[in-house]
Amino acid sequence: MVDVPQLVAQAREGRPRAVARLISLVEGASPHLREVMAALAPLAGGAYVVGLTGSPGVGKSTTTSALVSAYRRMGRRVGVLAVDPSSPFSGGALLGDRVRMSDHASDPGVYIRSMATRGHLGGLAWAAPQAIRVLDAAGCDVVLVETVGVGQSEVEIASQADTSVVLLAPGMGDGIQAAKAGILEIGDVYVVNKADRDGADATARELNHMLGLGEARAPGDWRPPIVKTVAARGEGVDEVVEALEKHRAWMEERSVLAARRRARAAREVETIAVTALRSRIEDLRGDQRLSALAERIVAGELDPYAAADTLVSGLTGS
Amino acid sequence: MVDVPQLVAQAREGRPRAVARLISLVEGASPHLREVMAALAPLAGGAYVVGLTGSPGVGKSTTTSALVSAYRRMGRRVGVLAVDPSSPFSGGALLGDRVRMSDHASDPGVYIRSMATRGHLGGLAWAAPQAIRVLDAAGCDVVLVETVGVGQSEVEIASQADTSVVLLAPGMGDGIQAAKAGILEIGDVYVVNKADRDGADATARELNHMLGLGEARAPGDWRPPIVKTVAARGEGVDEVVEALEKHRAWMEERSVLAARRRARAAREVETIAVTALRSRIEDLRGDQRLSALAERIVAGELDPYAAADTLVSGLTGS
Repeated sequence: MVDVPQLVAQAREGRPRAVARLISLVEGASPHLREVMAALAPLAGGAYVVGLTGSPGVGKSTTTSALVSAYRRMGRRVGVLAVDPSSPFSGGALLGDRVRMSDHASDPGVYIRSMATRGHLGGLAWAAPQAIRVLDAAGCDVVLVETVGVGQSEVEIASQADTSVVLLAPGMGDGIQAAKAGILEIGDVYVVNKADRDGADATARELNHMLGLGEARAPGDWRPPIVKTVAARGEGVDEVVEALEKHRAWMEERSVLAARRRARAAREVETIAVTALRSRIEDLRGDQRLSALAERIVAGELDPYAAADTLVSGLTGS
Repeated sequence: MVDVPQLVAQAREGRPRAVARLISLVEGASPHLREVMAALAPLAGGAYVVGLTGSPGVGKSTTTSALVSAYRRMGRRVGVLAVDPSSPFSGGALLGDRVRMSDHASDPGVYIRSMATRGHLGGLAWAAPQAIRVLDAAGCDVVLVETVGVGQSEVEIASQADTSVVLLAPGMGDGIQAAKAGILEIGDVYVVNKADRDGADATARELNHMLGLGEARAPGDWRPPIVKTVAARGEGVDEVVEALEKHRAWMEERSVLAARRRARAAREVETIAVTALRSRIEDLRGDQRLSALAERIVAGELDPYAAADTLVSGLTGS
C-alpha cells in the first residue's frame, strides 16, 4: 500500500526514504502519479533550480559536489538530480543507498538522485521536471540538475532551470563542441573548470568572444559572467555561488524568474498532454472503432484525414 | 489557384505533371491536402504496392528499374517511389523532370518520384503513404517503393507494402546487417542480387538457414522464396515478378491482402491523428489558456497533470 499523504509528510520532515519513494512514483507511470503530483503542487515553488551542463570530462560532478558543499555551509538544503550517464552518481542511487558522492552521503540536508531512464514514456524531458518537483516540495532550497550537454533532451532539461550554468574545460575544443550542441546559448553563468591547466585563459577569451560579452548591452540586460574554477580543490566555487545568487536577484528584480517558471510549467503541461493523447490513440490499436475506419478507407469510402478526425473526436468525446 | 478536381482528372488521364503536382500537395502541409485526399479516396485501392528494401550497395535501384521494365512488358502502368537518399532517383525528380532512370524517362506509363524529406512534419512515415495513394489513384497498376533498410521509418514504410522484397548481395555481411536492422522479418520475397559474384550461393544458404525456410510449415503458410538475380543484366527479374504475382495470389486467396491494407490504413490514421493532436497542442504556445494554467501551476494552485487534463479537454471541446 502506498500512503501518499504520509509519504509527503515524511518527505517534508526530511526523511530521505520518503523522498526516494516519491521520486520513484513520479518518474515511472505509477497509478499514484497523479495523486502525488496533486499533493505536491501547493508545496513546490520554493526551490531555486540550477542546471549544470557541459561535455563529458569538464568536471560536472566535481563542480556539483563542490557547489553542494558551498550551499551546505550556507545552511541550505540541497537536492541533486544527476541526469548524466557518465556521472558517478548514476545507477539509481539516492542518499544512503549507493551514493558515491562521499562528502555528502551522511548529510541529512542533501538529497541525491540519478536518472538515466532514457526512452521511458516521454523520456527525460517528461520525468526530470517531476523529480525536480518532488525535491522542491520536500523542502530543498536549491536543486542542482546535472546534465550532459550532448543530447537534445539534456539541453532541454538544462534550459528549464531557473539559472543555467554551462561548464567548459581548457584544451577540449569545447568552444566548438558547445556551439554545435547549442548549449552556449543557454548559459546564464559560464564556468571554465580545471583552470589550473594550460589554455584556461584562452578558453575564457574564446568564450568571451563567441558570446559577444565584450560588446555593449542595454542597461539592465544580464551579462553572463565567466568564472574560473578548480572544482577538485574548491577554488572559485564561492564565486560561482555568488554569480548564481546575483543572477537570481537580477531575475527576481525584473520578474524574469516568474516568467521562466511559467514557461517551464507550460512546457511541462504540453509534454504531459502530448504523451497522454498519444497513448490514448495507441490504446486504440485493435479497437473496433479504428478497424471500422480502416475498413472504410480500404473500401474507398473515406480518406485517412477524415478518418483521423473521426478518431480524434470519438476519442475526446467532442 | 489549385483546381483539385481538374488535377485529379488529369492525373487519371495519365498526365505526369498533374501527378507530380498532387504528390507535392500531399507530401507537404498544403492547405489543399485534405481536399486532395478526399478526392483520391474513391479512386485508390487498385494498385499492388511492392516494397523493396536492402542495405546500400545491394542494387536496389537497378533491381527497381529492371522490375519496371518487366511490368511494362506486361502492359502495366508503374509508379516508383524512391525513399532512399542514395538512390539515383533522389532529388525531387519526377518523370520528364530530372529523372536519371533513363530507360523509362520517355515512357508515359511510368511515374517516378523520389522522397527525401526527412523530419518534415510526421516524417517519411507520414508522407510516403500519401504519395503512394496519389500514384494508386492516378491509375498505376503497380507501385514500387524503394527504401534503404537502415532506418526505423524506412523499415516501417517497407512493411506497409502489400508485398515486401528484401534485397541482399553476396559478400557484404548482409545477413548480419539485415538481422540487426530487423528487415529480415519483413520479407515476403528475398532477392540475392549480383548473383554472378562469388558467395551468392553461400548468401542464399545462410539466408535460407536464418529464415528457417528448410523447416516444415503449416499447409497454406507462405514460404518466402529466395530468387537469385543479376539485375544489371536483367537476369532473374522475370522470376522475381513471378514470385511477386504468386505472393499476391496467395494473399488474395486468404484475404491476407485486405487485412494488410486495413492494418496499413489503421496505422496511417493513427499517424495522422497523433500529428494533428501534437500540432494542436503546439499551437497553444503563447496562448492565453496555456499561460493561465502555467500561472496557476507556478502559484501552487494546480499540478501539471490536472492542467494537462484541462488543456486537452479545452482543446477538444469535451
